[in-house]
Amino acid sequence: MTRNILYLAVSLLLIGGIAFAGNQKPLPAPNGITIPEGYKNWKLIASSHRSDNNTMRVVLGNDTAIASARSGKTNPWPEGSILAKLVWKNTTHEKWPTATIPGEFVHAEFMIKDTARYKDTGGWGFARWKGMEQAPYGEKADFVQECFGCHTPVKDSDYVFTHPAVIPE
Amino acid sequence: MTRNILYLAVSLLLIGGIAFAGNQKPLPAPNGITIPEGYKNWKLIASSHRSDNNTMRVVLGNDTAIASARSGKTNPWPEGSILAKLVWKNTTHEKWPTATIPGEFVHAEFMIKDTARYKDTGGWGFARWKGMEQAPYGEKADFVQECFGCHTPVKDSDYVFTHPAVIPE
Repeated sequence: MTRNILYLAVSLLLIGGIAFAGNQKPLPAPNGITIPEGYKNWKLIASSHRSDNNTMRVVLGNDTAIASARSGKTNPWPEGSILAKLVWKNTTHEKWPTATIPGEFVHAEFMIKDTARYKDTGGWGFARWKGMEQAPYGEKADFVQECFGCHTPVKDSDYVFTHPAVIPE
Repeated sequence: MTRNILYLAVSLLLIGGIAFAGNQKPLPAPNGITIPEGYKNWKLIASSHRSDNNTMRVVLGNDTAIASARSGKTNPWPEGSILAKLVWKNTTHEKWPTATIPGEFVHAEFMIKDTARYKDTGGWGFARWKGMEQAPYGEKADFVQECFGCHTPVKDSDYVFTHPAVIPE
């Protein structure tokens, strides 16, 4: 009887552990930003290929950002816009050697527009999660100065590099 | 009175004409395929950059294709899958010269999986609409032989070049 209760307890702990692992969310970024839910299902804004660091990128947006991108009103982007940039290492298509395609997943990075909350970084909250395990980037909250510094050259386009790709109506 | 009725009739015709122009769908492809509705709102499968013809590409999928891509079951892709490839001419980011980004829109092209209907072309219906005006590609229905010929080297991956990009859960 005691042994049966022990088995039951161990089983429940195991099931609980598996359930916890399955629902585990990535840790928040050091500045407190949590990873936006379901970003991989967001709609397309643009893509890019950087030859300086050999990465392929696709930029997706939440509904606010998409409405703004599609209406051409992105300077400034409206409050609540979130841009998600998914980044992969370059690889080459095995059957089409002149095609560069996404290889290993590098990171997902985000810009969240909240002018009041992120007034020290151009009205944007920055965060990044690394790799398939989605480990938060940065040691301390001031990691955002690195992001913001890199985006300063595009201050005149609301600190955003991405130009929404033109797509027919 | 007669003149007022004439004005009214002309006004209604004009309004009708504008409404028609606003809702105008691209013409069907020569093989009868009509452009899939709302494809620009579909979810992401992958991207690519072809240096042989200097184009950037993003591949989106309908819900059937996305479910299949996310579960890794794409050989074969299931019936009803539609892949949409959006293609732009290369351009360079004005503030980041090593970033190639989408410029002018070239075309949107589609692969529609219906094994019975398209048995002569690997189970896939092919179609393409050119430019922002979305003009159907091809003179006659046999234009698909050009599409199919180009996809024959990837027969072993169900005639599809695109490998779904890896994205965290």
